[in-house]
Amino acid sequence: MKAVVLASGGLDSTVAAAVARRDGYRLHLLSVDYGQRHRRELDAAGRVAQALAAEDHRIVALDLRAIGGSALTSELAVPKGRSETQRAGGIPATYVPARNTLLLALAVGYAETVGARTVFIGANVIDYSGYPDCRPEFLRAFEAVARLGSKAGVEGRGIEIKAPLIELSKAQIIELGTRLGVPFELTHSCYDPTESGEACGQCDSCLIRLEGFRAAGRTDPARYVRTLSPR
Amino acid sequence: MKAVVLASGGLDSTVAAAVARRDGYRLHLLSVDYGQRHRRELDAAGRVAQALAAEDHRIVALDLRAIGGSALTSELAVPKGRSETQRAGGIPATYVPARNTLLLALAVGYAETVGARTVFIGANVIDYSGYPDCRPEFLRAFEAVARLGSKAGVEGRGIEIKAPLIELSKAQIIELGTRLGVPFELTHSCYDPTESGEACGQCDSCLIRLEGFRAAGRTDPARYVRTLSPR
Repeated sequence: MKAVVLASGGLDSTVAAAVARRDGYRLHLLSVDYGQRHRRELDAAGRVAQALAAEDHRIVALDLRAIGGSALTSELAVPKGRSETQRAGGIPATYVPARNTLLLALAVGYAETVGARTVFIGANVIDYSGYPDCRPEFLRAFEAVARLGSKAGVEGRGIEIKAPLIELSKAQIIELGTRLGVPFELTHSCYDPTESGEACGQCDSCLIRLEGFRAAGRTDPARYVRTLSPR
Repeated sequence: MKAVVLASGGLDSTVAAAVARRDGYRLHLLSVDYGQRHRRELDAAGRVAQALAAEDHRIVALDLRAIGGSALTSELAVPKGRSETQRAGGIPATYVPARNTLLLALAVGYAETVGARTVFIGANVIDYSGYPDCRPEFLRAFEAVARLGSKAGVEGRGIEIKAPLIELSKAQIIELGTRLGVPFELTHSCYDPTESGEACGQCDSCLIRLEGFRAAGRTDPARYVRTLSPR
């Protein structure tokens, strides 16, 4: 049986793909080139697809710069360190409007064309950094949309959205990935890497990742410019 | 107050935009270049934006050819006439997987960036041609996704999806558009136009449009190669 896995090239989606593989699915990886600053993610996703023996890896171009609104796709500066907004439980500047809705819509469309009935997404709620579209209730609502708005839903039982990391902490995700043999050195998490691909060690995504490896008692094999100790 | 209107350049979305204008909204039109064969739609959308005095018109590029699956975006032939599948209530080959989910996700993202709380879509269920993602229950499910997955939903009351044509027949849409002064001559509906922009008069979209004008007792100002009398 086939599964579509949303593969950003980051740590979480790679562990989600490894879970799908462990569960016996044939992997169809889907990446989205949405004009993000950190395009190295896409190269990372390709290496991950190869390492996990995915049957296919598609990259859909979706240029979100036309609608703007995020530090990841526009000229807004990527914030360093956890921001005041986030510490107060708010939504960070790196939030891409409706991103997961878009990603899941593409994944469901792709699932329809390849005949997959399952979509994996690496969303998780614990270290979700204030993104509203990583919450379980959002994912359940999206499943209803996928059922009502797709051919698969009309003709059969719809397309299931699986988010196996949803309740895990970053440290638990890293432990799970380690057990599944995930090649963490291939994954890319930094929002603001150098030209040569080193992670900045200071953006939100780097800080969460470093914190996770530390909490899991493991060393992050990614290359960093400098590693600030996370607060 | 602002509204985002999904504007394909076709008849329905143009009437939906005219309704939004009548209701006092400032229009932010959003078109999606999803690799469709009938790219003239996008030019039509631009002309419509001008005619309706929209404040803004954005075109987002989303190349769905990477995931395939529809006669509108791939090498599958566009069917002529109403197919057996459709007569039996099935889903036609021109169905684009998860199209409205994608369009609405983009519209909600754009609404967030411009501060609009309303999205208009020209979906309608009567002449919906078998597309599952034009049904009212789909649109209600999407509203839940938009509420749970957006900044607007977390911080306020979410983003409303309005589909003012949802229960209207094509003839009623044409009558409504006529009352609102919609420039039908600017709209483009054909899935398979000639190089010079004439509608084929034979594809599903042309047949529904011609049938609608006939039922409304009006003449379609669009240019056709030949107009088959609709069965």
